[in-house]
Amino acid sequence: MFLRIDKLPVELPQSTKVDPESAAAVQELMGGRFGEMSTFNNYLFQSMNMRGKKQLGPFYQLVANICAEELGHIQLVGAAINSLLNGPETDVVEDGDEYATGTPIADLVGGLNFNPHHFIAAGRNSLPVDSTGAPWNGTYVFSSGNLILDLLHNFFLENSARTNKLRVYQMTKDPAAREMLGYLFVRGGVHRDAYAKAIQKLTGADLGKMLPIPKIGNEVFPEAKKYMNLNSHTKLYRFSPDDYRDIGQIWEGPLPEGGVAEVVDAPPTEKAGDHVELAGIGSAFAPDYHPQEVFEMAQQLYKSAKR
Amino acid sequence: MFLRIDKLPVELPQSTKVDPESAAAVQELMGGRFGEMSTFNNYLFQSMNMRGKKQLGPFYQLVANICAEELGHIQLVGAAINSLLNGPETDVVEDGDEYATGTPIADLVGGLNFNPHHFIAAGRNSLPVDSTGAPWNGTYVFSSGNLILDLLHNFFLENSARTNKLRVYQMTKDPAAREMLGYLFVRGGVHRDAYAKAIQKLTGADLGKMLPIPKIGNEVFPEAKKYMNLNSHTKLYRFSPDDYRDIGQIWEGPLPEGGVAEVVDAPPTEKAGDHVELAGIGSAFAPDYHPQEVFEMAQQLYKSAKR
Amino acid sequence: MFLRIDKLPVELPQSTKVDPESAAAVQELMGGRFGEMSTFNNYLFQSMNMRGKKQLGPFYQLVANICAEELGHIQLVGAAINSLLNGPETDVVEDGDEYATGTPIADLVGGLNFNPHHFIAAGRNSLPVDSTGAPWNGTYVFSSGNLILDLLHNFFLENSARTNKLRVYQMTKDPAAREMLGYLFVRGGVHRDAYAKAIQKLTGADLGKMLPIPKIGNEVFPEAKKYMNLNSHTKLYRFSPDDYRDIGQIWEGPLPEGGVAEVVDAPPTEKAGDHVELAGIGSAFAPDYHPQEVFEMAQQLYKSAKR
Amino acid sequence: MFLRIDKLPVELPQSTKVDPESAAAVQELMGGRFGEMSTFNNYLFQSMNMRGKKQLGPFYQLVANICAEELGHIQLVGAAINSLLNGPETDVVEDGDEYATGTPIADLVGGLNFNPHHFIAAGRNSLPVDSTGAPWNGTYVFSSGNLILDLLHNFFLENSARTNKLRVYQMTKDPAAREMLGYLFVRGGVHRDAYAKAIQKLTGADLGKMLPIPKIGNEVFPEAKKYMNLNSHTKLYRFSPDDYRDIGQIWEGPLPEGGVAEVVDAPPTEKAGDHVELAGIGSAFAPDYHPQEVFEMAQQLYKSAKR
Amino acid sequence: MFLRIDKLPVELPQSTKVDPESAAAVQELMGGRFGEMSTFNNYLFQSMNMRGKKQLGPFYQLVANICAEELGHIQLVGAAINSLLNGPETDVVEDGDEYATGTPIADLVGGLNFNPHHFIAAGRNSLPVDSTGAPWNGTYVFSSGNLILDLLHNFFLENSARTNKLRVYQMTKDPAAREMLGYLFVRGGVHRDAYAKAIQKLTGADLGKMLPIPKIGNEVFPEAKKYMNLNSHTKLYRFSPDDYRDIGQIWEGPLPEGGVAEVVDAPPTEKAGDHVELAGIGSAFAPDYHPQEVFEMAQQLYKSAKR
Amino acid sequence: MFLRIDKLPVELPQSTKVDPESAAAVQELMGGRFGEMSTFNNYLFQSMNMRGKKQLGPFYQLVANICAEELGHIQLVGAAINSLLNGPETDVVEDGDEYATGTPIADLVGGLNFNPHHFIAAGRNSLPVDSTGAPWNGTYVFSSGNLILDLLHNFFLENSARTNKLRVYQMTKDPAAREMLGYLFVRGGVHRDAYAKAIQKLTGADLGKMLPIPKIGNEVFPEAKKYMNLNSHTKLYRFSPDDYRDIGQIWEGPLPEGGVAEVVDAPPTEKAGDHVELAGIGSAFAPDYHPQEVFEMAQQLYKSAKR
Repeated sequence: MFLRIDKLPVELPQSTKVDPESAAAVQELMGGRFGEMSTFNNYLFQSMNMRGKKQLGPFYQLVANICAEELGHIQLVGAAINSLLNGPETDVVEDGDEYATGTPIADLVGGLNFNPHHFIAAGRNSLPVDSTGAPWNGTYVFSSGNLILDLLHNFFLENSARTNKLRVYQMTKDPAAREMLGYLFVRGGVHRDAYAKAIQKLTGADLGKMLPIPKIGNEVFPEAKKYMNLNSHTKLYRFSPDDYRDIGQIWEGPLPEGGVAEVVDAPPTEKAGDHVELAGIGSAFAPDYHPQEVFEMAQQLYKSAKR
Repeated sequence: MFLRIDKLPVELPQSTKVDPESAAAVQELMGGRFGEMSTFNNYLFQSMNMRGKKQLGPFYQLVANICAEELGHIQLVGAAINSLLNGPETDVVEDGDEYATGTPIADLVGGLNFNPHHFIAAGRNSLPVDSTGAPWNGTYVFSSGNLILDLLHNFFLENSARTNKLRVYQMTKDPAAREMLGYLFVRGGVHRDAYAKAIQKLTGADLGKMLPIPKIGNEVFPEAKKYMNLNSHTKLYRFSPDDYRDIGQIWEGPLPEGGVAEVVDAPPTEKAGDHVELAGIGSAFAPDYHPQEVFEMAQQLYKSAKR
Repeated sequence: MFLRIDKLPVELPQSTKVDPESAAAVQELMGGRFGEMSTFNNYLFQSMNMRGKKQLGPFYQLVANICAEELGHIQLVGAAINSLLNGPETDVVEDGDEYATGTPIADLVGGLNFNPHHFIAAGRNSLPVDSTGAPWNGTYVFSSGNLILDLLHNFFLENSARTNKLRVYQMTKDPAAREMLGYLFVRGGVHRDAYAKAIQKLTGADLGKMLPIPKIGNEVFPEAKKYMNLNSHTKLYRFSPDDYRDIGQIWEGPLPEGGVAEVVDAPPTEKAGDHVELAGIGSAFAPDYHPQEVFEMAQQLYKSAKR
Repeated sequence: MFLRIDKLPVELPQSTKVDPESAAAVQELMGGRFGEMSTFNNYLFQSMNMRGKKQLGPFYQLVANICAEELGHIQLVGAAINSLLNGPETDVVEDGDEYATGTPIADLVGGLNFNPHHFIAAGRNSLPVDSTGAPWNGTYVFSSGNLILDLLHNFFLENSARTNKLRVYQMTKDPAAREMLGYLFVRGGVHRDAYAKAIQKLTGADLGKMLPIPKIGNEVFPEAKKYMNLNSHTKLYRFSPDDYRDIGQIWEGPLPEGGVAEVVDAPPTEKAGDHVELAGIGSAFAPDYHPQEVFEMAQQLYKSAKR
Repeated sequence: MFLRIDKLPVELPQSTKVDPESAAAVQELMGGRFGEMSTFNNYLFQSMNMRGKKQLGPFYQLVANICAEELGHIQLVGAAINSLLNGPETDVVEDGDEYATGTPIADLVGGLNFNPHHFIAAGRNSLPVDSTGAPWNGTYVFSSGNLILDLLHNFFLENSARTNKLRVYQMTKDPAAREMLGYLFVRGGVHRDAYAKAIQKLTGADLGKMLPIPKIGNEVFPEAKKYMNLNSHTKLYRFSPDDYRDIGQIWEGPLPEGGVAEVVDAPPTEKAGDHVELAGIGSAFAPDYHPQEVFEMAQQLYKSAKR
Repeated sequence: MFLRIDKLPVELPQSTKVDPESAAAVQELMGGRFGEMSTFNNYLFQSMNMRGKKQLGPFYQLVANICAEELGHIQLVGAAINSLLNGPETDVVEDGDEYATGTPIADLVGGLNFNPHHFIAAGRNSLPVDSTGAPWNGTYVFSSGNLILDLLHNFFLENSARTNKLRVYQMTKDPAAREMLGYLFVRGGVHRDAYAKAIQKLTGADLGKMLPIPKIGNEVFPEAKKYMNLNSHTKLYRFSPDDYRDIGQIWEGPLPEGGVAEVVDAPPTEKAGDHVELAGIGSAFAPDYHPQEVFEMAQQLYKSAKR
């Protein structure tokens, strides 16, 4: 079972403009083969399917616990995409009928053809697809039942995910996107190192010698450096009220790129941020009606509930 | 962000035999268009994407909160599939080399051709696919940005999910599978009713008059009746330490099939159960090595951690 | 625009038993790459897209007219699949609650695992998928804008469709399936010959010399011979109240396998048959409720309409 | 069986320029999950598969009859796409060899990269794909065998289709595209209301209270208003020479957005229009040869036929 | 450029019976995510795309050379599938018309429903699909441009391929299938070790310590042991008349599971075998006509060529 | 088995600029339904699967031999795509850290959104996808077991491939792309004519009368004319050290568009060219490290090997 906390892992700054081209690129980190839906679902299925959960103790707990953190990463990528598709406006906009028949939306926001579904299907919001618009699918999940092979897969997955993120960083200058990327460079690095440590414990092979892939350190990126200054790159957070207490048997000792592994017995709520606020927009008929109306309805609901 | 509790929503009985045919059918409820991966991802994207999260208060919270419960349903379906693929054995089995070259596995378990990936890809475990083996994919997510339309979709989704579950119930007599089904008949009914109530609050349309679809009550099924006796069909659990406190503004009043809606301020841990234990099996080379070995390694890790 | 006549092209006999294995095989002729959805959609898009519809007169009309006939072939394949999935019963069956919790349906009908969606998704009815359960999709449509190439494609398509049908014939002995096949052997032969004639008119190449592919005549099959005795293999029917009057400029002269081409100015209604009657069944919760109920509602509707 | 009338439901004006960006967007209404291929195929499979066709009378007839109208809608969307990809020219253009090696086509028509298959695969014509280029596929068909659930699906489908159409309206100002959209806003509204009425007859639930979704009336759009002035929004046409005579038992009484339901015993031929004429173009080697040649061949065929 | 030698890498024994169930399972090694089409295409794209082919010398050559060997592995897997689908018969069979209308083929060969396309589409031959019938596709290719990451991927790929092969071994006892498997266990082991060595040369990380995955040696399997006795597990063959002469800079030194790496300057033709002979069969209308006919035509062609 | 020669069939000139739009279009010829991956895989499976390989002699050899040539065509298309994505630079570029955080790459190279995977997944290299980014897949392979039908398919395939190539020619002016196209116009013409001859030998049908499709000769294109001047359009090369010696029984006599068929007993190495050199680039973290580093490592390997 899972619980939900109504926060993002970190707060994102406002996007400076509507930027559907960057939004389309960032989708790779959501629904691509090496995106956050993939990290989450791989670790979810592996933790469900693992044989000998009790005997394997810390190995099971490691995968199960990282799985929970990935859900917050999905949300963070989604928040960045939504920010890019809506820009700095957060109030209700375009109220009235004239927008419906007036200037085509493509002119207003500089082209929605990068992924037309961002407008037609989702009303300018994120989708479970990659940067080419292809939907995430279950063939991206690897859960072989063989523990060593699963861990090797996860190590490969985290390195590929990092490579994709580094390339998306170069495709956008948007502050919301780059903040998200900087944070995930660091947290993805922790997960990668954790799988390397698990393999070393079990087989003695030192995969840390291959790191980092690509050979450029996170500290080069100011948006990542800021989180390294808070030692985010050495901490494995425990995402559970009471469980997964043995992960420190794997997450301990020196790290491949410096620092010493440390387990923190709580999720990283200290830097947690509010959701990006999205304005109701008439041009997408979203949320519905003329956007003000549904908000008023909800208001009345509150009032009648208080009576 | 999400937290994880190392329990299943309810405890499943042992499967009485290895039953890959039933396992293949139950996959529909995992990775099918109307399976639990679909309910989870639909509500995840809708809650990420919703405009005016604050103004819409209880409507946002309702979707966000139900989303969290669906993760546990994914786990429960996965546990049932794993149980069906492994049968009653929970100890280490088939240790030694002779299994590798001996009687083909297909002879042992009565056919693995229902979904050959259950053996070849997953080592007799669950996969993110449907009953035909097709992978779950992102086109199953509907997140239009239009609140009324999203709620109508969710009402349709829950009714379709129920129809599929009823039909899978008829395709298996396995006690683990039917226990899972009985519980999900009841919990899916709560979600369906919640979306009907949300639509009625916003528009006045009474979709409850269509229910149940199909027109057979949950009480007909002994595995569901048992949970109705605990009033599970009237309770909306709050799956969050501190958030989603306004869902009672929607989840209140009489229910379409009887009873009165009630919000419970905690997840349903009282009936929560342990994970289904799965034996290490040599024939699938899972977890790895000769199965006993990796368990011993984990054992040593514990010991060295205690020093 | 299209009109619809509430008849099948020919009447099918009752299937002698529930036969989901044959039903799964026959699906290839519905949603396979060379199935009837493919012939219909290829000719629909080619006729929509053709340049110079007026100047090309008979060539446009040929494709547009054959397109209309293919819709009836989709219906005939669907009727055969439905017949195989339901067997000889046509009355309301399994009324009452006990079927819901009683013997699993798989035991009753000899295995539904050939395509589990036949039961779970469709309630024992046809689907737009092929014999492996893969959905029909738009990549099966070829519409290049180049008339010679499109006609060459259509000639290849009809020959491949025939090969698939001959092989499905060998996979079932069901009288409904074989009746459908016999009729479609003959009608598909007419379409194949028509495209060969169109190519010969335009280029002089005599593709008729390659026929039949495979080299076994339709007359070998009693279910086809019966329609050849009615000269169905020499007739091109005009499927339009008033249009497509120039197709006789292409469909004329001797045919590759004997006989002389003849245009008939009406669809083949003389042998048209009623739809296969399908019982309401409780086990699939179809049509809904306990099956009798919805029939009674419809009855009342009639009565109140007559008042 | 179906017949074909060589007309479009309404006549489209000429597009004012070649506009491949708009054409790519309009494809959503052809091959998207909620496009016209989906409405047609859903109602085709539901009408083929319905149990108790005779007992359910008007419900069966309603679905079967609307199915036939959708074929004309596919054609209308296709005509709009073809118009956008070809612009106002209708004569033979680009005849001669020099176009083959001269200025790249992309420069001439302002970018063909929105959907490169529009040029490479289709020679500047429509395709069975959506706005991202993904092919239509059979998973978009819902045919559960449960009548209430199928009708609920259809109501959801029609509302989603309308939302997509409203959004595409905002993405283009082309007169051919907007004329098509205006007409389909109105006709789609009739189908949506018909399914709402069918559900109300069977269950009493009043889904009309939710309408319109999104909450903007068709009358706001001049291209739709013009058809409302002809009462097109209150008429259900009977698309059959002799059948489906009981649909008036459902399509009767007041409509959710005003007016009174009325059955018309013929298809709407009074406003039917000619197909959009498409020039032969050399750059796409379409229809073939130097475009003039194949036209001359067809000409000769006519002459020889008259002898 | 590539040249082709009309031999298989090794000779396969006859299958003892028609065994479509095993054939369906073996397809995983052809068109599955970790099958031979994947190894070939991964190394083909990586070798085409590699930057600095000259500067990277032996690394480029290693990937390019292994790529060529994988083509022979595709052929060997295909030969095993064809053998399983046809059994021991190699003469022309089922000549005459009676097979066409006689006993359904499914009865004769014990069920073709494991993958119905084996009969309907391919006439009892191999297909580019996996064990569930899903087609191989290009998303299985990983070519990132980053050399370390590509090599890590290849190491993961070879280990996953081995795991799948071990599991398929357990699903069949057919001598042709097991001979193919034994040979590929050994050759795949060489490729896996070669990628481990390349990574160690570049980074120092010793991945050999993880091997074998799963932890069962090839020598346990008699069909593999036989090739180990010929030292096939220590040899890297050079698959080129004149190129790839520097691979010995990587393939040298002791091997993880014993023995010393050795480069052989020629492909392994000494054990190469003839293709599996497949009878012409009437029931699949393959090759065509009554099967004897096309053979006679080819015969005449020979004779006239000799004149 | 296959051997590999480390050359391209012909040498390509440098691209004059980075041109990701053209690169995206050229991908159709790699991974599209009628691209070179399709020609190769069709002939590979047909030659593996052919029944009576010995009796059918020259027909088998023809398909097997053409198959080998297609591998070189895949490489040539890949080289053109890589050239377009990298432009004229061949030295190491962008070394240092500043590129990582500096100007987004999209600004530098004029938009990478045509296929974002070209940058994110492949580091500016080719992929096994088509012009819309959809992956090549196994449904593009047709291998029916019926020889006549397979040959008819191949004739259709080669004509469709030519049509696509002609259209891509019009979408780019890049010299590398057009050189590749000119060569493939000619070689594809040979394969098309060879299949036409094979069909005529077997059935007498003269498909040559339909050619060329589209009706524009290769000689119109200067990049093709140059190879026709070398008689490349009349030569069938034998791609094998010792096999396929009977193909001259089919490839003989006059050709549809002029000239006389001639077999050449060796691959066309006289015009073979070096691979396109690709610079290491920092912005894609390719090959890895700062690009210079990995080159230096390889250098050291050489030196140590020489000791």
